[in-house]
Amino acid sequence: MDLQNELIKRTTIFNTYWKRYLQLKKPTTLYEASQYLPFAGGKRIRPFLTMISCESVSGDAKNVLPFAAGLELMHNFSLVHDDIMDHSMLRRNLPAVHVKFGEPTAILSGDLLFAKSFEAILSTSVDFSVLKQLQQDFIDCVIAICEGQQLDLEFEKEKTVTEQVYLDMISKKTGALFELSGKGGGLIGGGNPQEVAALKTYGMALGLTFQIWDDYLDMSSNITTLGKDIGNDIRNGKKTLIAVHCLAHATGEEKILLNNIFGNRNASESDVKKVYTLFQELGSVEYAHQRALHYIDQGKNAISVLKSSDAKELLYQLIDYIIQREK
Amino acid sequence: MDLQNELIKRTTIFNTYWKRYLQLKKPTTLYEASQYLPFAGGKRIRPFLTMISCESVSGDAKNVLPFAAGLELMHNFSLVHDDIMDHSMLRRNLPAVHVKFGEPTAILSGDLLFAKSFEAILSTSVDFSVLKQLQQDFIDCVIAICEGQQLDLEFEKEKTVTEQVYLDMISKKTGALFELSGKGGGLIGGGNPQEVAALKTYGMALGLTFQIWDDYLDMSSNITTLGKDIGNDIRNGKKTLIAVHCLAHATGEEKILLNNIFGNRNASESDVKKVYTLFQELGSVEYAHQRALHYIDQGKNAISVLKSSDAKELLYQLIDYIIQREK
Repeated sequence: MDLQNELIKRTTIFNTYWKRYLQLKKPTTLYEASQYLPFAGGKRIRPFLTMISCESVSGDAKNVLPFAAGLELMHNFSLVHDDIMDHSMLRRNLPAVHVKFGEPTAILSGDLLFAKSFEAILSTSVDFSVLKQLQQDFIDCVIAICEGQQLDLEFEKEKTVTEQVYLDMISKKTGALFELSGKGGGLIGGGNPQEVAALKTYGMALGLTFQIWDDYLDMSSNITTLGKDIGNDIRNGKKTLIAVHCLAHATGEEKILLNNIFGNRNASESDVKKVYTLFQELGSVEYAHQRALHYIDQGKNAISVLKSSDAKELLYQLIDYIIQREK
Repeated sequence: MDLQNELIKRTTIFNTYWKRYLQLKKPTTLYEASQYLPFAGGKRIRPFLTMISCESVSGDAKNVLPFAAGLELMHNFSLVHDDIMDHSMLRRNLPAVHVKFGEPTAILSGDLLFAKSFEAILSTSVDFSVLKQLQQDFIDCVIAICEGQQLDLEFEKEKTVTEQVYLDMISKKTGALFELSGKGGGLIGGGNPQEVAALKTYGMALGLTFQIWDDYLDMSSNITTLGKDIGNDIRNGKKTLIAVHCLAHATGEEKILLNNIFGNRNASESDVKKVYTLFQELGSVEYAHQRALHYIDQGKNAISVLKSSDAKELLYQLIDYIIQREK
């Protein structure tokens, strides 16, 4: 099984399918704004996870397409709104929706994608009781994402954050959607409760790995090539796992250094480098790497209960792939 | 039947019921922001309409509480986001959510209310086929509201708008939710297709009356007491039915006057008064009054097919009440 080939095969099917929820209607500007991010690319890792989770319990992946579309629409809705909140100018190397269409239409297009995500979920062909379960899980997932984003916003204003609180935030903001991608695929595929629980745990582990690795990539890269990202995160006092670890382990002079520079928007280039160096010296960057490996193990262990299949093999490969990717 | 008594009786039940969807959780700020507008009052005309529509087909109003809660949560979500888009500072005589909690948390709290609205709908106790219908109608309604708000935003930049286009906008932005309040109440109450269709038509007529009357109240009041509202609407070039009528009927000098002042943010007090006077002289204010009366007739005619009941009597009184209220 070649992961890249299998990923492309399934995402091609997915991309053709979910267009039905993104058709151009009037008022045109609103629908163009809604299409903009979905059609701007994206790896479709969540839909892929839903599809292979379904296959891993001997289900037919085409049955999960409406549900996977719902999750991906919801993911795109949350990105559109997050970019407004975070004042992000770029997304997928293009101007963010609010930059291109203005903030009012961006808010509305997010709301529209949100409504469309429920429409997609509603068209899943399963028994009533399963559909109700999927809908409730979907609602809980959106709520978790809102809570996670709020926590992330609040972290910016806090001096330190404990690792536990940080993990709670990313398990909501990022983990919940991966978790439901795995669980939903298992449920629709007709998996037994043990299999569904395994796919759920795997999904969360994959999500945590994904987020921690995102932060790790930002910080572990060469400061001369990725200086801007690193500088921004340090100047904004962004509470990544690396920063959380460093803040918890710094003592004496190191603590004073962090206190003066981390979260200081006017910090100089050389000050930023000092913090970057401290992240390395206190083992915080390596710690994040180790935690990512830990969640990879956790994900793999979870799915050991699944019977052997090509899809199970892809699940193993997918979680390894997360830490192979580069930005 | 005394409308005010019956309204208070039912909204008291409703207000107690829907609190379950608005409980305080962590992160506290997010949930406080979500509670803020729902708990700031509001007449609950939509839930009341849903309840009496259900009763009018011999249904038990307590069965519509989850659905009515879903509609009211969704209404509140749309107000929170609209106020951000429209830069409104006040709502229900309090600072708007984004003014009190900041824009990022306001966007998120709207999203949370939206998610909660689906949760409420999902807990409606009806057959699977009815629930699926209600959910699809609910999604269509949210989409209509998004489209209506986008059209309203676009109208600000247009010189004139035809009456038909204006009516399309308000039937989406305001009418759709009233329409579904009536229809949903009838469906859950077990009404036959003819009754459900009647309540749907009545709901839309009520919504149109409501919106036209809102605009009428703004413009028909004494310019010395309500000068600020009138001034803002004229300076912003707000496309109310009154303005739409006036723009369509002005000729010669009047047209030039409108062209110079209507939509001119720097218009003087005396210029604003000239437009206000023109609205009166061309019969535009009276025209809006007549259109409101027309929709009242339409609503009443629609429900003539319902069998006699106290609830039917309340439906008649409710639509009359819409044009008795003052701001």
